[in-house]
Amino acid sequence: MTRQLHLNAFLMNTGHHEASWRLPESDPYAHTDLAHYVNLARIAERGTFDSLFLADGPQLWNTVAQRPAGALEPLTLLTALATATEHIGLIATASTSYNSPYNLARRFASLDIVSGGRAGWNIVTTAGEEAARNFGLAAEPAHAERYARAAEFTEVALKLWDSWEDDTIVADKAAGVWGDDAKIHPPRHEGTYFSVAGALNVPRSPQGYPLLVQAGSSEDGRAFAARYAEAVFTAQQTLADAQGFYADLKARTGRAGRDPEHLKVLPGIVPVLGSTEAEARANERVLDEHIVPEHGRTRLENLLHLPPGTLDLDRQLPGDLPPESAIEGAKSRYTLVVELARRERLTVRQLIGRLGGGRGHLTFAGTPEQVADAIGTWFTRGAADGFNIMPAVLPSGLEAFVEHVVPILRARGLLRAGYGPRRTLRERYGLPRPANQHVTRHPAPALSRT
Amino acid sequence: MTRQLHLNAFLMNTGHHEASWRLPESDPYAHTDLAHYVNLARIAERGTFDSLFLADGPQLWNTVAQRPAGALEPLTLLTALATATEHIGLIATASTSYNSPYNLARRFASLDIVSGGRAGWNIVTTAGEEAARNFGLAAEPAHAERYARAAEFTEVALKLWDSWEDDTIVADKAAGVWGDDAKIHPPRHEGTYFSVAGALNVPRSPQGYPLLVQAGSSEDGRAFAARYAEAVFTAQQTLADAQGFYADLKARTGRAGRDPEHLKVLPGIVPVLGSTEAEARANERVLDEHIVPEHGRTRLENLLHLPPGTLDLDRQLPGDLPPESAIEGAKSRYTLVVELARRERLTVRQLIGRLGGGRGHLTFAGTPEQVADAIGTWFTRGAADGFNIMPAVLPSGLEAFVEHVVPILRARGLLRAGYGPRRTLRERYGLPRPANQHVTRHPAPALSRT
Ligand SMILES: Cc1cc2nc3c(=O)[nH]c(=O)nc-3n(C[C@H](O)[C@H](O)[C@H](O)COP(=O)(O)O)c2cc1C
Ligand SMILES: Cc1cc2nc3c(=O)[nH]c(=O)nc-3n(C[C@H](O)[C@H](O)[C@H](O)COP(=O)(O)O)c2cc1C
Repeated sequence: MTRQLHLNAFLMNTGHHEASWRLPESDPYAHTDLAHYVNLARIAERGTFDSLFLADGPQLWNTVAQRPAGALEPLTLLTALATATEHIGLIATASTSYNSPYNLARRFASLDIVSGGRAGWNIVTTAGEEAARNFGLAAEPAHAERYARAAEFTEVALKLWDSWEDDTIVADKAAGVWGDDAKIHPPRHEGTYFSVAGALNVPRSPQGYPLLVQAGSSEDGRAFAARYAEAVFTAQQTLADAQGFYADLKARTGRAGRDPEHLKVLPGIVPVLGSTEAEARANERVLDEHIVPEHGRTRLENLLHLPPGTLDLDRQLPGDLPPESAIEGAKSRYTLVVELARRERLTVRQLIGRLGGGRGHLTFAGTPEQVADAIGTWFTRGAADGFNIMPAVLPSGLEAFVEHVVPILRARGLLRAGYGPRRTLRERYGLPRPANQHVTRHPAPALSRT
Repeated sequence: MTRQLHLNAFLMNTGHHEASWRLPESDPYAHTDLAHYVNLARIAERGTFDSLFLADGPQLWNTVAQRPAGALEPLTLLTALATATEHIGLIATASTSYNSPYNLARRFASLDIVSGGRAGWNIVTTAGEEAARNFGLAAEPAHAERYARAAEFTEVALKLWDSWEDDTIVADKAAGVWGDDAKIHPPRHEGTYFSVAGALNVPRSPQGYPLLVQAGSSEDGRAFAARYAEAVFTAQQTLADAQGFYADLKARTGRAGRDPEHLKVLPGIVPVLGSTEAEARANERVLDEHIVPEHGRTRLENLLHLPPGTLDLDRQLPGDLPPESAIEGAKSRYTLVVELARRERLTVRQLIGRLGGGRGHLTFAGTPEQVADAIGTWFTRGAADGFNIMPAVLPSGLEAFVEHVVPILRARGLLRAGYGPRRTLRERYGLPRPANQHVTRHPAPALSRT
């Protein structure tokens, strides 16, 4: 079989465009409406996507005036969606900075069991002081420290997920023996950030543990991804940048002693479709005209760590912005935005327009053929193993993608036509089930024993 | 309408009897089987129970040899059950000692939304050093300290659940205004155990917040219940004890300035049914014969804080056990077990038999009429507002209760015949929806304005 695209549907209430909620078709209460998400999940399943994905941060962003705020907690929502779908993977974001490994490991193992092996974890370190202040901290921990904690958190979680061997349960009713205690391996972890003594209270799950996903592209983020991630979400504005990122990450993965094929790179794309290019551009314009520029300015000042009211909507960014190394928040997104503005000499107002659709992800307006071409080009020219599809408006943008772009990708042999038998999320991404770290492989049984 | 029974189904893999998994009918993998729990939830809904309930502790209990260990994380499982049921309340246990208020408040608000207002929270402080050692502590925090933290945790959670007024969302598409920031109330809490600055990132849920349930019966536990609990689970061995507990708790609730009717007392009962009393006793005997006494001894030594190997199966408990005040674990359960053994002069082996069914809850073997009589007596004689039904074997024990006891209770006018329209869990328990602490009541609108 030829190499196939991996598609992930990044779901976000009324869509990724910040003004999407203002369109007549949009439901401003979609953010907490389970039926809305069930509908989206089923559309994505019709499009044979590998997975769907929910972003998250443990804080209320900005003000509620500007656009839908708040959401259903991702693992809760994905658990409900697990019962409404059959094939699609379910990837939840959860923070290593503001969770305990024991609690989070349990929850992912439980989702993996309930969904029949379809759970994924987008491991994030959570930028921003708002989140820190909801968890007893006065300020956000430094970027490097957040990633150090993320690595230890992941190690502990892996120990917990391997704390039951797959065949721990013997269920011998006659003897009154339910399980084999020799196959339970308490972590007894004592580290810098965590100490966790006991075994998990959930048996090993269908996938062993959830698919590990990562989404930060800073130096520390890439190092983390090379070590742990099986799929990487990333925001890339140009083919060249995406190729550079792809090559770098694959090389790092190899240097970390892993098979580079076992890490899938998925850039984000915000497709805005039309039956002609002009219509697509008109659709994009309608959305952009609904942006309230003052809201965008506030968010931009926040990302760039500038005091409120510093930016002038009709001028370019100030020339004296600090280097990425001085930023403790979201490093790679900072650099992407500054470089985009400088490269295209955008005014703040124009920059806000460019960020309105995908917050730094590539927005691509065009016909279904043009979108399929762009996807095919990035896929075949070493920039992507698949895509994180981020519709500007939901559900209509996802419906349009599945109805018009998916058939073209299938006709070109880039995407499967159906799911076939039930599989785990990791199998969909072409990855092996991880072995339990406590199991030493036994030699194959001698033929004479059969 | 006459006063009606409130029934809660306490679900636990193959049943509450510790040897239930050994029966031929039992599925030793039930503990992680969603279909098993969906079946139980639907049986309970046929019996028009108010709610179902899952216990929890963030640790792996004892050894896996003795009986099914591990479970699906309760909020995950209840979220999945929310999509498979329509009326029944969903009560999850979660610990105030090993969670962050922000994370837990989000999860309960999300479950309440997804289930249409059917979420409940059994607030526990979690006894035992195993749990402590999974969260970076060397030993369990003292009993009084756990309850002090529980009170502050609950206060913070209430602030978070009230951080959005019910009518925060205005959804004015034309003006580009989604919400009213004046109706967002960040807690800005700075306390002894927690500091939590920002508003919740989930809007106020259908019930305002989950039904608050409590299940510890020590002095501190009762004080906490009187202040916060809307339903209380309790283990009581005799009618007299249960009446004393009931009267005490209602009086405390009144003294705390609350309506005693707004706290429902639900003792646990393990019904073992038979078509004759002899058959019921025979069913109980079959279960008890499957107990492995050495396992029971280990658990008993654990509860009584005795070194392993201290207890002799064929002698009574030692005379020099410490007073409850010296116990930092589960205080009220300790006293209940010691008093039961002394009152009935039980050997350790006999005591293990008595605890095998319900771990201290009343086991009642009899015909459906006898069980209905016992329930009716406790209900009408000031010992209970309803019951926590804890079948010894699942699903068969719940099925038998719904098929044989429920019709008798209905015929006696003690239990509704059907659910009627959809309601929230709090409405099922006859409790009002809590007002938001930030909303001052406006005078009723003047008639001339209509
Ligand atoms: C598609 C995508 C989704 C992301 N989702 C989240 C998220 O939900 N929560 C979060 O804290 N970070 C998320 N991130 C990562 C943030 O962008 C990240 O905090 C930021 O890139 C900082 O990481 P870095 O400093 O390594 O670049 C996401 C990134 C991408 C590309
Ligand atoms: C029906 C019932 C269910 C309970 N479930 C739990 C539970 O799931 N987790 C827990 O930590 N405690 C639970 N408890 C409470 C423990 O029994 C409690 O830790 C113990 O009673 C200590 O509280 P106390 O010291 O106030 O008595 C439950 C109690 C009852 C009566």
